[in-house]
Amino acid sequence: MERNSYIESLCKDARNASRFVARLSSNERNAALRAMARRLRAESDYILAENARDVAVAKNSGQTGAFIDRLLLDKDRIGAMARSIEDIALFEDPIGRIENMRTMPSGIRVGQMRVPLGVVCVIFESRPNVMTDIAALCLKSGNACVLRGGKESINSNIALQRVISASLEEVGVPHAAVTLVEKTDRALVPVLLKMNSYIDIVIPRGGESLIQAVVKDSTIPVIKHDKGVCHAFVDRSADPDMAVNICLNAKVQRPGVCNAIETLLVHREYPHARGLLLALSEKGVELRGCPETVAILPETVIAANEDDWYAEYLDLILAVRIVGGIDEAMEHIQRYGSGHSEAIITGDYAMAERFLAEVDSAAVMVNASPRFHDGGEFGLGAEVGISTQKLHARGTMGIGGLTCLKYVVYGSGQVRS
Amino acid sequence: MERNSYIESLCKDARNASRFVARLSSNERNAALRAMARRLRAESDYILAENARDVAVAKNSGQTGAFIDRLLLDKDRIGAMARSIEDIALFEDPIGRIENMRTMPSGIRVGQMRVPLGVVCVIFESRPNVMTDIAALCLKSGNACVLRGGKESINSNIALQRVISASLEEVGVPHAAVTLVEKTDRALVPVLLKMNSYIDIVIPRGGESLIQAVVKDSTIPVIKHDKGVCHAFVDRSADPDMAVNICLNAKVQRPGVCNAIETLLVHREYPHARGLLLALSEKGVELRGCPETVAILPETVIAANEDDWYAEYLDLILAVRIVGGIDEAMEHIQRYGSGHSEAIITGDYAMAERFLAEVDSAAVMVNASPRFHDGGEFGLGAEVGISTQKLHARGTMGIGGLTCLKYVVYGSGQVRS
Repeated sequence: MERNSYIESLCKDARNASRFVARLSSNERNAALRAMARRLRAESDYILAENARDVAVAKNSGQTGAFIDRLLLDKDRIGAMARSIEDIALFEDPIGRIENMRTMPSGIRVGQMRVPLGVVCVIFESRPNVMTDIAALCLKSGNACVLRGGKESINSNIALQRVISASLEEVGVPHAAVTLVEKTDRALVPVLLKMNSYIDIVIPRGGESLIQAVVKDSTIPVIKHDKGVCHAFVDRSADPDMAVNICLNAKVQRPGVCNAIETLLVHREYPHARGLLLALSEKGVELRGCPETVAILPETVIAANEDDWYAEYLDLILAVRIVGGIDEAMEHIQRYGSGHSEAIITGDYAMAERFLAEVDSAAVMVNASPRFHDGGEFGLGAEVGISTQKLHARGTMGIGGLTCLKYVVYGSGQVRS
Repeated sequence: MERNSYIESLCKDARNASRFVARLSSNERNAALRAMARRLRAESDYILAENARDVAVAKNSGQTGAFIDRLLLDKDRIGAMARSIEDIALFEDPIGRIENMRTMPSGIRVGQMRVPLGVVCVIFESRPNVMTDIAALCLKSGNACVLRGGKESINSNIALQRVISASLEEVGVPHAAVTLVEKTDRALVPVLLKMNSYIDIVIPRGGESLIQAVVKDSTIPVIKHDKGVCHAFVDRSADPDMAVNICLNAKVQRPGVCNAIETLLVHREYPHARGLLLALSEKGVELRGCPETVAILPETVIAANEDDWYAEYLDLILAVRIVGGIDEAMEHIQRYGSGHSEAIITGDYAMAERFLAEVDSAAVMVNASPRFHDGGEFGLGAEVGISTQKLHARGTMGIGGLTCLKYVVYGSGQVRS
């Protein structure tokens, strides 16, 4: 009961603040963002001291180096967070724009006005920079937000929240416009997910178990940012240097991210398969292949099992399958993929067009690395995440994904006959 | 278990058919639609005979005249269903269009291609014309559909399904592209709502209890078409004739639909309130007012209670409240409305602009009847329904709402640095 009233009161305040934020002009919202960036830099000693407490706890509890690296802040990282907010301030304002304005036969003029969603809830895990990114994207798009971070970064999150609150106060915006759930009790999450009268959208950012729990418990519409089992298909006609470059980039440059490839599909008649596999292996990639792949490089390639085709390794491991052509490649992607990002490397116009038209994933590419699937690279500015569902926002989700269109009608007394 | 395998096999077949439909050209999809229209007319005697069986059951079980009217088909209604399909065939094809194509600094070209959602599930109540409308909208947008109608129209639905299947066969489209759940067992619905690996979106069309059950049980994303508690606000400066025309149209022309108004808000300083109330009363509208409204016309206006402000009467009843101005009017709409359609009648430019910008509903109008909120009147052609949620599709939802955008990237070997 106490949990309910704590969460409900936070959400109600966020809802009221969202009406205030929605009425701000673009200049006022950008002024709030610039104040946030300024204060982040000015208060970096305080933020770093609080972050050090989280890092100490993580070290004492024996967390991995990768975990601590995600958690850790330093002056450079705070500088990058501030710059990211300033970049968002510079971005074009989507709010209030009227699209598709037309005069109908009845004489009414109908258009669609881009407006904020209202209150955005983000549930995230250990990276404290999510706090400032999401707060900035929400303010830019005229939304309030309710943020729930992990226990492991709670001191950093509270420190960032205080800095954000002070910036909002400086420019006269109610501090509930960026609300942090400061209590870390896990039982608060299901309560939060039932607040559909105050919250318009919930975005889970984290591992599969978090996402599944949110989908199951939420009465608020969810935008999933699910796993990335991404594919590259090297067609018969692929340029050999291009194939090596793209596959290395897609697997090796940053293997721990969702737009890195996990499976390589190679046309049976591609003449340079051996060279491609060797190039990957030389960069330290463990190859797990179908029997035909093993036959190409028996001393290097391990036999893959069925689970490998579903795996999101997030590591220097790559599943490899030889396929008879584009149809078999697309069937494999359909069956095992997660609908995230796929690339074909080909010199053949018809294959390129078929792959683009027929593969049912959030991003489909010809002769480019799937690593490009990113808000910055696609020109959206900062991203909320990469959605693997089809409704509302598919693929990289920027400021536009935090808005919706309402119909506006200008009449002069028309009635319907 | 048998239920599960029955539903799963239907959904799997629909999924496979969806891939076939997605690859059809615009001409092929339109040919299927024209075949459907032709066969509907040719087979009208068969359809009417099956419909007569449903009507007989409804009459014997003592259903209301309104219920039977919704269920009843005749030659004219079948003709209208066929014409509606032909209109959809003539409509512009959204599929395959690439929007927002841009060359990025890395040299890749990025655009967004409009593609079908995949499999659309619609759960509907007694109107058999929903069958043909939804089948046509889904085929036009390259989707397959799984339809589940009410028990009361099952013979009509099966007859329509047979006609549709024959038309699909005629043009070589797998009949599972339009799938009807022919068994009427209620326990099948929760099973259907868990088929998220085969179905991309579920749209409940019917009363509040149906919609709530779907939202609660579904693991598939839902587009709600909820109730319409719509408002008209007559501002101080409203033209008196225009106010009467719009309010009469909005309440009296067709009171049983979701875009009819349920509450009238009148500015305290509007000089013609009495005449407006009289005009409504003369057309047979029962008025339920706040104390100030009662004071204007004590013999005509009944005292409203709190429930009246939330009510969707769908009848010749109107709640009326006197308000101090636009802020009070907007607060009332925010608090009691369902976010469907609202209108202001005003001569004041600033009030018109504030109402359009600040009211958070799917359609907001100045000096026009909320009855215009409709796919046909807004230029979308036929509509799937009117969505009262913000994600994906808000307000009247046409063919576009059955599609999504995937990113397509044209490269020439670029990798990410």
